[in-house]
Amino acid sequence: MIANAYYSQEIHGPYQLFDLGPAFTLEEGGTLRNAQLAYATHGKLNKAKNNVILIPTWFSGSSKVFEQAYIGKDRALDPEKYFIICVNQIGNGLSSSPHNTPAPAGMGNFPRIRIGDDVRAQHLLVTEKFGVNELALVVGGSMGAQQTYEWAVRYPAMVLRAAPIAGTAKNTDHDFLYGQALSDAITSDPGWRGGWYSSNAEVRAGLERHAGIWAVMGFSTEFFKQEVWRNFGFSSIPDFMINFLHAYFLPMDPNALLCMAWKWQRGDVSRHTGGDLKKALARITAKTFVMPIDEDMFFPPRDCKSEQKMIKGSELRILNAICGHLVLTGFDPAFLQQVDKHLKELLAFKV
Amino acid sequence: MIANAYYSQEIHGPYQLFDLGPAFTLEEGGTLRNAQLAYATHGKLNKAKNNVILIPTWFSGSSKVFEQAYIGKDRALDPEKYFIICVNQIGNGLSSSPHNTPAPAGMGNFPRIRIGDDVRAQHLLVTEKFGVNELALVVGGSMGAQQTYEWAVRYPAMVLRAAPIAGTAKNTDHDFLYGQALSDAITSDPGWRGGWYSSNAEVRAGLERHAGIWAVMGFSTEFFKQEVWRNFGFSSIPDFMINFLHAYFLPMDPNALLCMAWKWQRGDVSRHTGGDLKKALARITAKTFVMPIDEDMFFPPRDCKSEQKMIKGSELRILNAICGHLVLTGFDPAFLQQVDKHLKELLAFKV
Repeated sequence: MIANAYYSQEIHGPYQLFDLGPAFTLEEGGTLRNAQLAYATHGKLNKAKNNVILIPTWFSGSSKVFEQAYIGKDRALDPEKYFIICVNQIGNGLSSSPHNTPAPAGMGNFPRIRIGDDVRAQHLLVTEKFGVNELALVVGGSMGAQQTYEWAVRYPAMVLRAAPIAGTAKNTDHDFLYGQALSDAITSDPGWRGGWYSSNAEVRAGLERHAGIWAVMGFSTEFFKQEVWRNFGFSSIPDFMINFLHAYFLPMDPNALLCMAWKWQRGDVSRHTGGDLKKALARITAKTFVMPIDEDMFFPPRDCKSEQKMIKGSELRILNAICGHLVLTGFDPAFLQQVDKHLKELLAFKV
Repeated sequence: MIANAYYSQEIHGPYQLFDLGPAFTLEEGGTLRNAQLAYATHGKLNKAKNNVILIPTWFSGSSKVFEQAYIGKDRALDPEKYFIICVNQIGNGLSSSPHNTPAPAGMGNFPRIRIGDDVRAQHLLVTEKFGVNELALVVGGSMGAQQTYEWAVRYPAMVLRAAPIAGTAKNTDHDFLYGQALSDAITSDPGWRGGWYSSNAEVRAGLERHAGIWAVMGFSTEFFKQEVWRNFGFSSIPDFMINFLHAYFLPMDPNALLCMAWKWQRGDVSRHTGGDLKKALARITAKTFVMPIDEDMFFPPRDCKSEQKMIKGSELRILNAICGHLVLTGFDPAFLQQVDKHLKELLAFKV
């Protein structure tokens, strides 16, 4: 274990911890011992236990961003109406992760995690901790969309509505290569030492390169052409790089990012059906809104649309955002309004 | 100087060398001493010396690709009608470059080159070597488009027609960041040693990461979705990565790629007009076809279109290619047919 002040109640809290038990076995063959899921809840669980919304996190994200940008009175994700569980994916630095897992199982020895592992762990949280057997909605962006699809395919009877935003049910080859470039940027740093650095600062150069690749793919060409970053108070590209992207990524744990990237690269609900994606998506009974972002460079609408067509009764709801994929982080009110509008409609849908 | 068998007459020839003289001074303040431009010609210069087509090279490319993919009888670039000069940009490994420049001026000491330096050097070749003062057409892709624009702005009276394909007159911020990510992939390799490796094999890991980032940006999401790479005889993504992208990039000189990337990042004809792009492009008198590729991830049509609008009498001719930017390398006959069609029309245009 190593210290990392970024993953703290001060920055990401308040959050609670749910014990996954002495041995949580993983799809890739490893075991997490005494692992924990970090989660935050908003609102109150009703007596019928049927007002639950589950939100898994995206790559590099935490439960906190939903509280800050997506949840609020009169919003779609309204804590006065719903009991909202924001759950941190395994390996994100708050839930059990390489840097916070005791030796010898942490750091470079932290096992491979799959999207399916996350969803099974979240299922334990939802059913055992809260006694909930019905989810009014599962909604998530990017890797959160991967987990949303996994929920809808793995536990179809539990998921009444699903809203995968800017993500896919089966990761594409292009996206796999993107994840690989991001990971290679980190692992190529001699300071990473196979995952056995003593501080994330030792992997600073790798984290900077990782941020540099996000700059190319995380927004859109038009975001840069229109210099949209100026709207957020940045004065130049270097200022934007340092005080937005470096500020965001450099405090993070390199192994956490690698754990998530590996998982993201291999997200695939067709693992349930011997590789048959159509068959896997046919399992979904949730009313599903597939919500890609029009300017997304790595989860483009056409990739999401071809999956949407395989989901019975689903609808394609394209979100418009010149900022591209990272608009998910919540800095554009016009984007959040669109998300709210679609989610309100979805939540109003009688199932 | 270090040996690199890739840059040879066997692989890229036949090509000739043109002496740039004892001291060719550069925009960034350096000097190339006894530098040379490598070039290949096709066809015959007519008596009027008005049948000349000039083709500068793109990032990582050489004059050879034009002979192989773009030039031929009854093609637009027909050597039976035109005298075609394919000229290698400085730093591409064939013209004067870090690895073939004698100590102490080579390798990590090779000076910074600008697009404007290339075009001045090419101007010497065209005027002094061939006594040519009129170019029927300048055409180039990607960095070749940058040089094409530079030609049309710097020597407007000489350039009758211009066809910048999949490139911009002023490089975008997004493209700058892309170039940076590519360069960082190489310079982060400890084997690069500030440019003082003794063989490009020492920078193998960096070259592989560089190829890995090209995989993400050089094609399109749809190229991977449709598995278009199968059409070229590859059996899997790893097979495609190793036997196409690694096979292409790994024999190259890391400093050459860095020299070109630095130049590409800073391509900007508005350097002639104090940063006023409109004013710079207003200098162009060539009949110009701006030819972006619809699926290009880093020279998207909308970036090219906004420049095209500033060029008097110009036309936007969008090329359709699911393969994205790297279709330029010539592997798709349907793409080459489109290029031919537009160039034939342009060449038929009376100026």
